[in-house]
Amino acid sequence: MSWTLAEIAQHVNGQVVGDPEYLIRGVGTLTHAGPEQISFLANNKYKKYLATTGAGAVIVAAGTETDAATNLIVVDDAYVAYARAATMMHPLPKAEAGIHPSAWVHPEAHVAETASIAAQVTIERGAVIAEDVAIGPGSVIEADVKIGRNSIIKANVTLCREVQIGERVVIHPGVVIGADGFGIANDQGRWIKVPQVGRVIIGDDVEIGANTTIDRGAIDDTVIGQGVKLDNQIQIGHNVTIGDHTVIAGCVGIAGSTHIGSYCAIGGGTGIAGHIEIADGVQLTGMSMVTKSISEAGVYSSGIPIEPARQWHKNVIRYRQMDKLFERVTLLEKRLKD
Amino acid sequence: MSWTLAEIAQHVNGQVVGDPEYLIRGVGTLTHAGPEQISFLANNKYKKYLATTGAGAVIVAAGTETDAATNLIVVDDAYVAYARAATMMHPLPKAEAGIHPSAWVHPEAHVAETASIAAQVTIERGAVIAEDVAIGPGSVIEADVKIGRNSIIKANVTLCREVQIGERVVIHPGVVIGADGFGIANDQGRWIKVPQVGRVIIGDDVEIGANTTIDRGAIDDTVIGQGVKLDNQIQIGHNVTIGDHTVIAGCVGIAGSTHIGSYCAIGGGTGIAGHIEIADGVQLTGMSMVTKSISEAGVYSSGIPIEPARQWHKNVIRYRQMDKLFERVTLLEKRLKD
Amino acid sequence: MSWTLAEIAQHVNGQVVGDPEYLIRGVGTLTHAGPEQISFLANNKYKKYLATTGAGAVIVAAGTETDAATNLIVVDDAYVAYARAATMMHPLPKAEAGIHPSAWVHPEAHVAETASIAAQVTIERGAVIAEDVAIGPGSVIEADVKIGRNSIIKANVTLCREVQIGERVVIHPGVVIGADGFGIANDQGRWIKVPQVGRVIIGDDVEIGANTTIDRGAIDDTVIGQGVKLDNQIQIGHNVTIGDHTVIAGCVGIAGSTHIGSYCAIGGGTGIAGHIEIADGVQLTGMSMVTKSISEAGVYSSGIPIEPARQWHKNVIRYRQMDKLFERVTLLEKRLKD
Repeated sequence: MSWTLAEIAQHVNGQVVGDPEYLIRGVGTLTHAGPEQISFLANNKYKKYLATTGAGAVIVAAGTETDAATNLIVVDDAYVAYARAATMMHPLPKAEAGIHPSAWVHPEAHVAETASIAAQVTIERGAVIAEDVAIGPGSVIEADVKIGRNSIIKANVTLCREVQIGERVVIHPGVVIGADGFGIANDQGRWIKVPQVGRVIIGDDVEIGANTTIDRGAIDDTVIGQGVKLDNQIQIGHNVTIGDHTVIAGCVGIAGSTHIGSYCAIGGGTGIAGHIEIADGVQLTGMSMVTKSISEAGVYSSGIPIEPARQWHKNVIRYRQMDKLFERVTLLEKRLKD
Repeated sequence: MSWTLAEIAQHVNGQVVGDPEYLIRGVGTLTHAGPEQISFLANNKYKKYLATTGAGAVIVAAGTETDAATNLIVVDDAYVAYARAATMMHPLPKAEAGIHPSAWVHPEAHVAETASIAAQVTIERGAVIAEDVAIGPGSVIEADVKIGRNSIIKANVTLCREVQIGERVVIHPGVVIGADGFGIANDQGRWIKVPQVGRVIIGDDVEIGANTTIDRGAIDDTVIGQGVKLDNQIQIGHNVTIGDHTVIAGCVGIAGSTHIGSYCAIGGGTGIAGHIEIADGVQLTGMSMVTKSISEAGVYSSGIPIEPARQWHKNVIRYRQMDKLFERVTLLEKRLKD
Repeated sequence: MSWTLAEIAQHVNGQVVGDPEYLIRGVGTLTHAGPEQISFLANNKYKKYLATTGAGAVIVAAGTETDAATNLIVVDDAYVAYARAATMMHPLPKAEAGIHPSAWVHPEAHVAETASIAAQVTIERGAVIAEDVAIGPGSVIEADVKIGRNSIIKANVTLCREVQIGERVVIHPGVVIGADGFGIANDQGRWIKVPQVGRVIIGDDVEIGANTTIDRGAIDDTVIGQGVKLDNQIQIGHNVTIGDHTVIAGCVGIAGSTHIGSYCAIGGGTGIAGHIEIADGVQLTGMSMVTKSISEAGVYSSGIPIEPARQWHKNVIRYRQMDKLFERVTLLEKRLKD
C-alpha cells in the first residue's frame, strides 16, 4: 500500500509543501525514517533533525516549516495529524468473525455473529458480546458481562461478573476488571470479608493498559467515564469514579471511593488516598502523593528528585533536624530583638 | 429472596428499632438505597444522611441511632454487622462441582469430587485439589501444588510448582504465586541466576488481590500467615514472611527476606526494603518508605504531600540548600554569642 | 542424587577443607540446613552461624573460613559458587517436547520439534518457536513473534505481535510484552489513539519477572539489552532502551523514550521520567524519583524514610515553611551585619 502526499494531506487537513505526488508507504522517526516514510515534528527539541532527516516527508505545525530538506505537510497540530495519518497507513489486521473451536462459550451467553472470539477464550452464562467485538486468546468473560460494539479485548484479560464495557473500548492483555474491592471489617482482631456487590461500568472510547486492575464497587458501582485513557499497571479501588477524558499514566494507585474529575492528567507513579475529591482539570506530576481533596484546577506536585547518595544522606539528616532549626532561628530573632 | 429486620438483627446480633417484620431484599448505600434495601453507618462523616436516606433500614452502632427517619438495627460494630448481613443476603453463586471438558487435568493430579474446575484450566502432575475448591477459567495449577478445602481461585491465576494454599483462601484474577525470586549473582560483570528452590506457603483465610505477585523462597519458603489480607498489585519478594492477620493495601512492594509481624496494617504504595524486621502491630501510612527495621508497634509515616507546582519547585530548591542554611544559622549563633 | 564435596568443589572451582568424600544431596540455609545439605556464607552478617550450622558443608570465600564447625568449600566468590552448585543440584524438570493436545497452534506458525508447548497455549500465524523452547500453560504467542532457542516462557504470559525474544531468555507468569504504548494525542480536548507500530526486542539471557509489562515502540522499537534482569511488576514504556547487563528491582516504572545505560542497578519502586538518558553504571537506591538525565556513573538516591507519624506531621509542616525560614535567616544576617 502507498499514499501520495496529496492523499495524506487531505486526510489530515493539511497543505503539501513540495511534491504532492510523492509516494509514502508508512511512518518513521525523524532520525530513522527512509524516503518511503513520513515522519512528524511535534517537539521543538527535535527541530534540528528537520534539516538532516532521511524521511520522504514530515508533518509539521504551521510556523515550523523553515529549513526542511524534504517534503512537508503543514497542519495545525502535527501530533494529531500524525496520529490520523498513521492510523490510515497502519490499520490493525481485523480479527476474523466467529468463535474459535478451542473457545468455550456458555449456551446462555449471546455472541454477535460479527464478533471474533479467539482461541482458549471462556465466555460464561449471560454474557452479551456485541457486533464487531474482538476477544483475544485466553481471555475470560464472566457471567453477565456486557461488551459494547467495536470494543477490542486483547489476550489473557479477565472481566469479572456483571462488568459493563462501552463501545470502541480497547483493553490490553492481563487487565483485570471487576475483582473484589479491598473490603474488610475488623472483628475483634480478625479481618472478615465485606461482600463486594457493586459492578464496574466502563464508558465508550476508553483504553486500558496492560495489567491494570479496576475493582468492582462495594455496593454502588465503580465508574470510568468516556474517553478516559489508562496506562499500564494502574490500580483503581472500589467505588472510584473517573470523569470523562481524564488520562492516567502508568503505575498510579487510586484508593477506594475517591472521585476524580474530567479532563485531569495524572502522572506516573502517583498515589491518591481514598474518600477524596479531585476537581476537573487537575494535573498531577509524576510520583505525586495526594492525601487530601483538590478543589481547584491547576498543576500540583510532590516528591524530591534524586541527588548523589552522599548528599541525599546529609539532607535526610538535616530534614529531621528542621524543627530544631526553626527553634534556633526563633531564639536568634528574640535575642537580636533584645 | 427477602429477610425481615428481625431475621437480620438475629443474624448480626443486634436490636431492631422500628418494625421487626419489615422486609429487606438487599444492601444499598445511605445515599442510594431504596425501601427494600438495608444500609449502614460506620463513618460519622456520613451521619447527616441518616435523616434523609431512602433505605428501608440502617445498621448503626449503639449511640448513633438518634434522628433516623427509618428503621434501625442497633449493634456493637456497624461495619462488622453490615459485612455479616451482606454476606447472608448476597451469597456468591456456588461453582458447579466437576471438571469442565475444556480443562486439562494431569492423570496424576488429584481433584476432589466436590471441587469445581472451570473451562480452560490446566492442572499439572501431582497437584492436590481438596474438597469444595473452585478454580476459575484459564488458571494454571502447576505440579505438586496443594490447595486446601473451600478455597476459591479465580480466573487466570498462576500457582507455580509446590505452592501450598490453606483453607478458605480467596485468590483474585491475575495473581502469580511461586514465580522465581529475584536471585542473581554477579559473576565478573554478568549476572547469573541463583536457583530458587523454596516454596510459598499461604495460610488459612488469606485473601489475595488481583495481579498481586508472591515469589517462591530462594532456599527456605516464603510464608504468608493466616488471616492475612492482601490488596491488588502487591509485590512480595522471596523469603518474606508475613505474620497472622496483617493487612496490606494496594501497590505495596516488599523486598526479599523481610519479616513483617502480625496485626500490622500497611498503607498503599509503601515500599519496604529487604532483610529487615517489622514488629507486630506496626501501622504504615500510604506511600511510606521503609529502609530499616521497626522494633516497636505504632504509626509511622513518610512522604511529603502535593502542593501547587510552583511552590513545590521552590521548596525542592530550598531543600537542597538546607545544609548551607544550617551553617548560616550556626554562624549567626556564634556571632551573636561573640 | 548426591554429590561428593570433591565433585562440588571441582564444579565451582574451589578447595575442600574437610572430608572430600562427604555426600551432599541439596542446598540449605545456614540456620536450617541439615547434614546432607550444603549452605553458603556471602553476607558477613551471618558469619556467626558458621560455628553452629547443621549444614554438612558451607561454601565460603577465602579469608572467612575460620571457626567453622563443618566441612568447607573455599572459593573466590561464595555467592557465585553457590549459584553454580545449586544449579547443578537442583535442575528444573525439563518440559516434554511436543505440542499438548489442548494447545492451539496456527498451521502457519513454526514450532521446532524439540520445543515444548503446554496445555491451553495459543500460537498465532507466523510465530516462530526455536529449538528447546518451553511455553507454559495458558500463554499466548501472537502473530509473527519469534522466540530464540532454549528460552522458557512460563504460564499465562502474553507476547504480542512481532515481539522478538532472544536465546536462553526466561519470562515468568503474567508478563505482557508488546502491548501498545501510551500514545495519545489531544484533539481539542479529546484524546485520540496514536498507533503503536514499533516492536519489542529482547536480547539473549534476559530474565523478566512476574506481571512485568514492556510496551511496544511507537514507531521504532523498544529494546532490552542482553543479560538484563528484570524483577516483578516493572513497567517499561514505549521506546525505552535498556543497556546490557543492567538489573532492575521490582515495581520500577520507566516512562517512554528513556534510555538506560549498561551495567546499571535500579532499586525497587523507583520512577524514571520519559525522554531522559541514564549513563552506564548508574545505581539508584530504592524509591528514587528521577526527573532529569544522569550523565555520570555513581550512586543516586531520593526519598525520606519513615518516622513516627506525629513527628512526620510536624516535619511536613516545617517543610512548607522552609522558604520563610530562609527569609528569616537572611534578615537576621542583614541585621547582625548592620
